[in-house]
Amino acid sequence: MTAIDFAAFVDQLAAVSGETIRPFFRTALGVENKSRSGGFDPVTAADRAAEAAMRALIKTTFPEHGILGEEFDAERPDAEYVWVLDPIDGTKSFICGLPAWGTLIALTRRGEPIYGMMHQPFTREHFTGDGRAASYRGPAGDRALRTRGCAELKEAVLLTTSPLLMREADRQSFGRVEQAVRLSRYGGDCYAYCMLAAGQVDLVIETELKPYDVLPLIPIIEGAGGVITSWENGRPHAGGRVIAAGDRRLHAQAMELLKG
Amino acid sequence: MTAIDFAAFVDQLAAVSGETIRPFFRTALGVENKSRSGGFDPVTAADRAAEAAMRALIKTTFPEHGILGEEFDAERPDAEYVWVLDPIDGTKSFICGLPAWGTLIALTRRGEPIYGMMHQPFTREHFTGDGRAASYRGPAGDRALRTRGCAELKEAVLLTTSPLLMREADRQSFGRVEQAVRLSRYGGDCYAYCMLAAGQVDLVIETELKPYDVLPLIPIIEGAGGVITSWENGRPHAGGRVIAAGDRRLHAQAMELLKG
Repeated sequence: MTAIDFAAFVDQLAAVSGETIRPFFRTALGVENKSRSGGFDPVTAADRAAEAAMRALIKTTFPEHGILGEEFDAERPDAEYVWVLDPIDGTKSFICGLPAWGTLIALTRRGEPIYGMMHQPFTREHFTGDGRAASYRGPAGDRALRTRGCAELKEAVLLTTSPLLMREADRQSFGRVEQAVRLSRYGGDCYAYCMLAAGQVDLVIETELKPYDVLPLIPIIEGAGGVITSWENGRPHAGGRVIAAGDRRLHAQAMELLKG
Repeated sequence: MTAIDFAAFVDQLAAVSGETIRPFFRTALGVENKSRSGGFDPVTAADRAAEAAMRALIKTTFPEHGILGEEFDAERPDAEYVWVLDPIDGTKSFICGLPAWGTLIALTRRGEPIYGMMHQPFTREHFTGDGRAASYRGPAGDRALRTRGCAELKEAVLLTTSPLLMREADRQSFGRVEQAVRLSRYGGDCYAYCMLAAGQVDLVIETELKPYDVLPLIPIIEGAGGVITSWENGRPHAGGRVIAAGDRRLHAQAMELLKG
C-alpha cells in the first residue's frame, strides 16, 4: 500500500475535521464575548472535537494503525502506520480571526512521514505531498507545488510565526538571518511552510516546534523540491528548531548565519 | 445623497478591483520565479491596474467627484465628495502569498469619511461601515460587526502589522503596551482593524500609516462601536501613528502606556 492509496482517505479526514472546526472559527464575530475569563474556549473546543472526529474515522477504517495527536493520548504508537494529527496549527491566528492556521495530517510508516496534508477549512485550500511530488487544491484552482530558486539571502523572503516565540539565544541567531534577507514577515504557522512549497517565499525559520507541527509538512516541502532540517542540519522529524528553504544554496547560507 | 446610496456603487468598485487583482495573487504558485531582480512585479502591476479600473468607473459614474489613490495623482481633491483608494493594503502579505491584505475604499464628504469598505478578493470577504453601523459579508455569511467589551489590558488581544515598521522610540512605546496585554500578534494590515470591528481582537496599534490606509477603516471601526485616534488622541484621518480599540476603557489605558 502506498501513500497514493491513502490520499482519498486523507481528503475524508480533512473534510470531517473542517466541518467540525468551521463553526468555531470567529464565533465572536458580531457577538459580545462574555466568556473570556474562564468558561468556553472556542479554539480548544474546536481542536478537541476535530481530533476526536478524525480519530474515530481512522479507527473505523484502519483499526490496526496508530494515532498521535495534540489533544489526546497516543494510540498504538509502535504500529507500522501511525497517523499524526494537529487539528489547529496556529491557534493564536485562530483566536485573532486571521486565516493563517490550518489542519495538519501526516501518515507515517515506521517513523517516516510518507504523506502529508495542510488543510485550511476557511479558505478551503489543500496542500499535499508525498516526498516526491506536492500539489495544491483551492479556490485558485489545482496545481503542482514547486519551490522557487533563490541563490542569495539578499534576494530571499523569510517567514516566521513570531520572534516572540523564540528563546533569547535563538532570537539572536534568527536575527542574523533576518538582517540578511530582502523581506522578513511574521505570522505564518503551517501556512508559511505551504507558501514556501508554493514558491511564494524562500525561507521559514522557527523554534519550539512539536513533532505534529512538522511531520505533516516534510512530505509537502520535500515533494515540492525544498529542503527542511533541524538547525543542526539533522532530520527535522522531532520538531524543535527547524529551517526550511526552497533552494539548497539558500539553506546552506542561512545555516552559516544561524551558527554565528 | 447619503452613504447608503453609495453602498451598491462601492460593491461595484470592489468587484471590478477584485477581478483585476485576483489573477496577480500567487502568480508564483508552482512556477519558477524568473523575474525577481527587475522586470515584472506582480504587486505593483495589480495595484496600478486595480486603481486604474476603479478610477475609470468613478469618473464615468460620478464625474464631479474627486479621487485620491496610492498609485496615481489626485484628481479634484477639493470636490465635495472624494474617493480614497488603496487597491492592495498589505503588499508584503500579498508578496508572501498570505491572505492578510485587502482593498480599501472610502468615500469622503468635505474631508470626513462617510462610508468605508475593506474587500479581500481571495477570501471574498467584505467589511463595510458608515460610522453608525458596520457589517460583514463573506463565506461565513452576513452579519453586523460589533466590537467586544474588554475592560483591562491584561485581558486584551493586540494586533500590529510588524514592530519592524516602527521607529525606535515608537517601538519602545508600543512595547510597553505589548508587555501589558494577554496576547500580541503580528501581520495584520487592514485585516487587523476588521478583526477589531468583528469583536475578535481588542487593540490595533500602528505607525507610519498613510491617509488612504486609515480613512476607509474609520467608518467601519466607529460603525462597529470602536474608537480610533492618533497616539495624541486626535483625529486619525491623516494616518501616522494610530490606535484603535474595541472598548473606550482599553483605549484610555493603552494611551497612558504609549505616553510613557
